[in-house]
Amino acid sequence: MQVYEAPLRDMAFVLNELHADDGFGDLEALSEFTPDLTGAILEEAAKVAQEVLLPLNRSGDIEGCTLENGVVRTPKGFKEAYDMFREGGWCALASDPEWGGQGLPEAVNKLTEEMICSANLSFSLYPGLTHGATTAIEGYASDELKQAYLPKMVSGEWSGTMCLTEPHCGTDLGMLRTKAVPQDDGSYKLTGAKIFISAGEHDLTENIVHLVLARMPDAPPGVKGISLFLVPKYLPKDDGTPGAANGVSVQAIEHKMGLKASATCQLNFEDSVGWLVGKPHKGMEAMFTMMNTERVSVGIQGLGVGEAAYQSAVWYAKDRVQGRSLSGVKNPDGPADPIIVHPDVRRMLMTMRAYNEGSRAIGAWVARALDAERYSSDPEVKARAQDFIALMTPVVKALFTDLGHEAAHLAVQVYGGHGYIAESGVEQFARDARIAMIYEGTNGIQALDLVGRKMPAHMGRYLRSFFHPVAAFVEANKEDADFAKMIEGLEKAFGALQLSTGTIAQKGMKDPEEAAAAATDYLRLIGLVAMGYTFAKAALIARAKLAEGAEDAAFYKAKITTARFFFDRLLPQATAAFLAIKSGKSSMMELEADAF
Amino acid sequence: MQVYEAPLRDMAFVLNELHADDGFGDLEALSEFTPDLTGAILEEAAKVAQEVLLPLNRSGDIEGCTLENGVVRTPKGFKEAYDMFREGGWCALASDPEWGGQGLPEAVNKLTEEMICSANLSFSLYPGLTHGATTAIEGYASDELKQAYLPKMVSGEWSGTMCLTEPHCGTDLGMLRTKAVPQDDGSYKLTGAKIFISAGEHDLTENIVHLVLARMPDAPPGVKGISLFLVPKYLPKDDGTPGAANGVSVQAIEHKMGLKASATCQLNFEDSVGWLVGKPHKGMEAMFTMMNTERVSVGIQGLGVGEAAYQSAVWYAKDRVQGRSLSGVKNPDGPADPIIVHPDVRRMLMTMRAYNEGSRAIGAWVARALDAERYSSDPEVKARAQDFIALMTPVVKALFTDLGHEAAHLAVQVYGGHGYIAESGVEQFARDARIAMIYEGTNGIQALDLVGRKMPAHMGRYLRSFFHPVAAFVEANKEDADFAKMIEGLEKAFGALQLSTGTIAQKGMKDPEEAAAAATDYLRLIGLVAMGYTFAKAALIARAKLAEGAEDAAFYKAKITTARFFFDRLLPQATAAFLAIKSGKSSMMELEADAF
Repeated sequence: MQVYEAPLRDMAFVLNELHADDGFGDLEALSEFTPDLTGAILEEAAKVAQEVLLPLNRSGDIEGCTLENGVVRTPKGFKEAYDMFREGGWCALASDPEWGGQGLPEAVNKLTEEMICSANLSFSLYPGLTHGATTAIEGYASDELKQAYLPKMVSGEWSGTMCLTEPHCGTDLGMLRTKAVPQDDGSYKLTGAKIFISAGEHDLTENIVHLVLARMPDAPPGVKGISLFLVPKYLPKDDGTPGAANGVSVQAIEHKMGLKASATCQLNFEDSVGWLVGKPHKGMEAMFTMMNTERVSVGIQGLGVGEAAYQSAVWYAKDRVQGRSLSGVKNPDGPADPIIVHPDVRRMLMTMRAYNEGSRAIGAWVARALDAERYSSDPEVKARAQDFIALMTPVVKALFTDLGHEAAHLAVQVYGGHGYIAESGVEQFARDARIAMIYEGTNGIQALDLVGRKMPAHMGRYLRSFFHPVAAFVEANKEDADFAKMIEGLEKAFGALQLSTGTIAQKGMKDPEEAAAAATDYLRLIGLVAMGYTFAKAALIARAKLAEGAEDAAFYKAKITTARFFFDRLLPQATAAFLAIKSGKSSMMELEADAF
Repeated sequence: MQVYEAPLRDMAFVLNELHADDGFGDLEALSEFTPDLTGAILEEAAKVAQEVLLPLNRSGDIEGCTLENGVVRTPKGFKEAYDMFREGGWCALASDPEWGGQGLPEAVNKLTEEMICSANLSFSLYPGLTHGATTAIEGYASDELKQAYLPKMVSGEWSGTMCLTEPHCGTDLGMLRTKAVPQDDGSYKLTGAKIFISAGEHDLTENIVHLVLARMPDAPPGVKGISLFLVPKYLPKDDGTPGAANGVSVQAIEHKMGLKASATCQLNFEDSVGWLVGKPHKGMEAMFTMMNTERVSVGIQGLGVGEAAYQSAVWYAKDRVQGRSLSGVKNPDGPADPIIVHPDVRRMLMTMRAYNEGSRAIGAWVARALDAERYSSDPEVKARAQDFIALMTPVVKALFTDLGHEAAHLAVQVYGGHGYIAESGVEQFARDARIAMIYEGTNGIQALDLVGRKMPAHMGRYLRSFFHPVAAFVEANKEDADFAKMIEGLEKAFGALQLSTGTIAQKGMKDPEEAAAAATDYLRLIGLVAMGYTFAKAALIARAKLAEGAEDAAFYKAKITTARFFFDRLLPQATAAFLAIKSGKSSMMELEADAF
C-alpha cells in the first residue's frame, strides 16, 4: 500500500535546528518567514500532497497518458488536481513576487517539493518543469518576453518544458541539429525533432512554453553554436491569450518503465516561431542555469520517492505477521509477530530511514545556500554560498537519486512476493525512482561534473566551502565521549576524502581518464562524508535538546539511533569507495573495445 | 536492444579448466560426457536460446499472460516454442534416464539453464518448475506415483508447480491453512487457496501436476504438521491420459513488475484429489529437497539475466556515439566516439562483466559438487560435496540474484534515457531480474539460512569445505609476484571472513539476533571471497595458458584484466561488509516499532 504522511517534524528539524550555525541563515529579506509561518505552509502543503496528489499516484500509473489525434491526455483526476494545485497558489510558491510568485525561501520550497514528489512523482513534473523554465526566462530573456510569459507561467496557467535531447544526442548536445532561421521581425523559425520532452504535451494548461536548444544557420559547430529559444505551443494574441497553433506537434509518447502519468513526448517543430533567450550561440549557459536548478530538484525527487517507499515499507512491516522474534514472542495474541521484529527487515528499514534523513539534511543545507546566494547582504557569505551550491549540485542530484532508488528497491524487498505485485504499489516506486538517476544528466555525468569541473575550479575553492565546516566540526568534537565512534568515523572518512581528492587532482592533471575513472566513487564518498557530518551534528543537537528536557524526546532519541546506524552500517561504504579510487584506471580501461 | 549470444568460451572455461583440481571431477558415471560432447550440447542449447527463445522475450513482456473464463493463455509463440523445446529433448536434459531423462551432468545442465534464462526468463519457469517438481517426486513419492507421473513430466508433456504460499503466509509456512482430508482409498481431498503459483495454469501442456503443501485434520500446529501432496489438474484416466477436472481453478493471474510472460496464479483447490508425497507431516522435508534444487536454479536465473543485460549494454556502448574520448579521438570519421571509450561507461560494463564471470565460476563449482554428490564413488568426496552444496546454496541464490539485478540496473544506466524506454528492452531485464531476489525464499531468508543453519552445522564443518581450498590456495601462491595484489586482496578478505565467522558464532550463541543482524553482510562477504578465489585461480590458469602459447590468447588476457578489475573495484566491498558486521545489532534493533 502506498502510505505517506509528510515528515513534518524532521522537516522542521532540518529547517530550523540542524543548520542554524552554517552562516547561511538570518537573511533580512526572508525575515517574515518565521518558523511559525513556514510550519503552517508546510502543513498546508502536506495536506495537498496527502489528500490531493497521493490518491492519484497509483491510478495514474495504471492508466498512464494517452495520445490520440495529436492530443495527449493525462490520467483521470490529474486535470482537477492541477487546477486545485494552481488555484491554491502552489505553482507560484518559489517564484519572484515581481511575476506573481510568493517568494518562498528555497529552504522551505525544497521541502514542499519533496512532499509533492513523495505523493506523486509523475505529477510533480508538470509544475516542476514550468518552474525550471521560468528560472531561465527570468535570467536571460528580454523584458518583452518576460512580460508576456512569466506571469502566466508563474501562476501555472501556462506550463513550460526543456527541449534539449534529439534522437542522436543527449549528453553530447554539441551534435544537435534543430535549426533556427532568423526572420525579419527579429523572431526565428525553428525546425527539428526533439525527444524525451517531459510535459511536452498535455491537457493541464491552455498553453505550453517550450525552451528549445537549436542552431542558427551561421552557428559555429559543437556546443559553442547552440542558442536557446522560447517557442510557445500557441502564439499569444495581442490580448495575451493563446492564439494560432505554432507548428509544434507530438509524434509519440514514450512507453516507459515508470513515471507513466508524466507525458514524455517526441516533439516536432516545423517552422515554429520562437524568440531568442539570451545571447546568440550562448544557449548552453542559459540552459545550465535552468539545469542546475533542476538538478537539485531532481535530487529531491529521489528523496521524495525514497520517503514514500520507506513509509510504505514501515506500514507493511508493522502489519504483516510472519515468524516469531528471535528475542521472544512480541505478539502473543496473534499467529505470528509483525515482521518489523526481524533484524534483516530492520536493516532494510533503518537503511531507508538513514538515507532519507541524511539526504533531507544535506538538501536543507544546500537550499539554505540557495537563499543566501540570492538574499545575503554579506558578499563573503554570498560567495561561499555560490561555491557550496556549485560543489553540491551534482552530489545532491546523483546521491539522492541513487539512494532514493535504493530505498524503493528495499521497500519491494520488505514486501517480499507482494512487493513484486503491482497492487502493492511499491514496485511503482522502484520504477518511478529509476528515471531520476538518468535525466537532467545521468549520475555518471554528475560525477564527471564534480571531479572534472567543480573539484579543480579555482584551485579547489568550491571544495573548501564543504571541507572547512567538516574539519572545524571534527576538531571541535574530537574529545566527545558519547559520540566517539561517530566523530572518529567521520574523521576517518573525511581523511579518505581528502586523500582521494589529492590523488585524483594529481593523477587527473596528467591523465584526465584517471579522474573520470574515479568520479562515481568520489561522488559517493563526498556524499557519505556529507551525510556523516550532518548526522553527527544532528546527534549532538539531539543530545543537547534531550538534556534540556525537550518535549519531543522520542524524535531526538530516534535521531541519535539513526545517526548511530548510519555510522555503523552505511558509512563503511566510504572505505570501499576510497579503495576503489586508489586502484586507478588501469584495469577499467585495459580491455580493447573488441574484447567486450 | 536485447542482444544475446551464449558465452560458450567462458562456459567451456568454467566447465573444463577452472575447477579441474577441485576433487569433484573424474566421475566414472559421467565419463561419456567428454568436453567434445558437452561442447556440442552447449552449442545446440545456444541455438535454441538465441533463435527460439530470445525473439519471444520482449513480445512476451508486452503481451503478457491473459486469463479468460478460467483459461490462462501464454503470449503468442510460447506454445510453439515450448513444443519445439520439448520435442528437442530440452525438458528432459538433466533428469534421470530411468524416467526418460538424458542424465546430463549438472555442471553442463546449469550452463544450459543460464542460456535459457538469458534468452527468456519468463519461459524458463515453465520447464524449470517442472524439473523441480520431478526432483521431489523422484525423492519422496511412491512407486505408483512415480510411474504415473514422472515419464510425462520428464518429457515435458505435463508440467509441474510448487504450491506453498497462501495469502497470509509465505516465509512462515507454519501458518498455512489448506486442508487435506484422507479418503478411504488412500487418497486425500484438498481444499484451500494458494497464491503466487508460477505456471499454475497455462496452455503449454495438456496436464499440470501441482505439488501442494497442506495440513491433515490431525496435524500438529506449525511447520511440523505440513504434508506434501501431488494434485493433478486433470485426474489421469486408466490409460494414463488426462481425464476429469480435479477441482483446481484459477482465481486470478497477478499483475507483476516483470516476468509478465510467466503466469503467476492464484489457485483454488476444492475437494481436489491428491496423493501424499513422502511421510505425513513431513512435507517440509520433501519441499526443501525441491527448494534447494530450485534455489541454485534461481541463482542461475540472476546470472542469466545479468549476462543478457551485459551483452545488450555492450552492444549499445559500441553503437551509440556521444562525446569524445578523454585520451584522444577514437572515431575520427564519426561525429563522436562510441560511449564505450568513457571510463564511467567502462566502470559499469566491467562491473557487469566481472559479476557475471564470477557468478558463472562459482556456479560451475557448485554444479560440479552436485554431480560429485550424486555420482562419486568416494565417500569422502561425496560428503565434502554435500557440505559444500549445503553451504553454497543460499550464497548462489542470493548473491547471483543480487548481482544479476545490479547488472540489469547498470544496463539501464548505460543506455541512459533510452534505457528507461520499453523499446530498448533493457528495463525489462531490470524488472524481470527483480523477482529472483524474492522468490524461493527472499535473499534475507537465504542469509539467515547461511548464518543460522549452515554456518553452525556440525561445528562449522560446511564452512570448511570452502575455507580449506581458499586457505590452501592463498598459502600456495603467497609469493606470486605477478598477482601479488590479487593474492593479498584475497588473503585480506578471507581474513575478514574468518574474523566475521568467529564474531558471529560467538555473539550469535548468546543472542541469535546478533547473527541475524549480520546475516546479509556475511552472505555478501563470503560471496565476494568466493568470487575473489575463483578469479585469482582463473588468472593463474590464464597466465599458464598464455605462457604455453594458447590459441585464444585474447580470452585469457581478458580474463586476467577482468580478475584485476574485480580486485581493484569490487572486492573492496568486503571491507564495508566486515565493518558493518563488526558493529553488531544495537543501532539496528534499538528503535521501538512505534518510533518508525
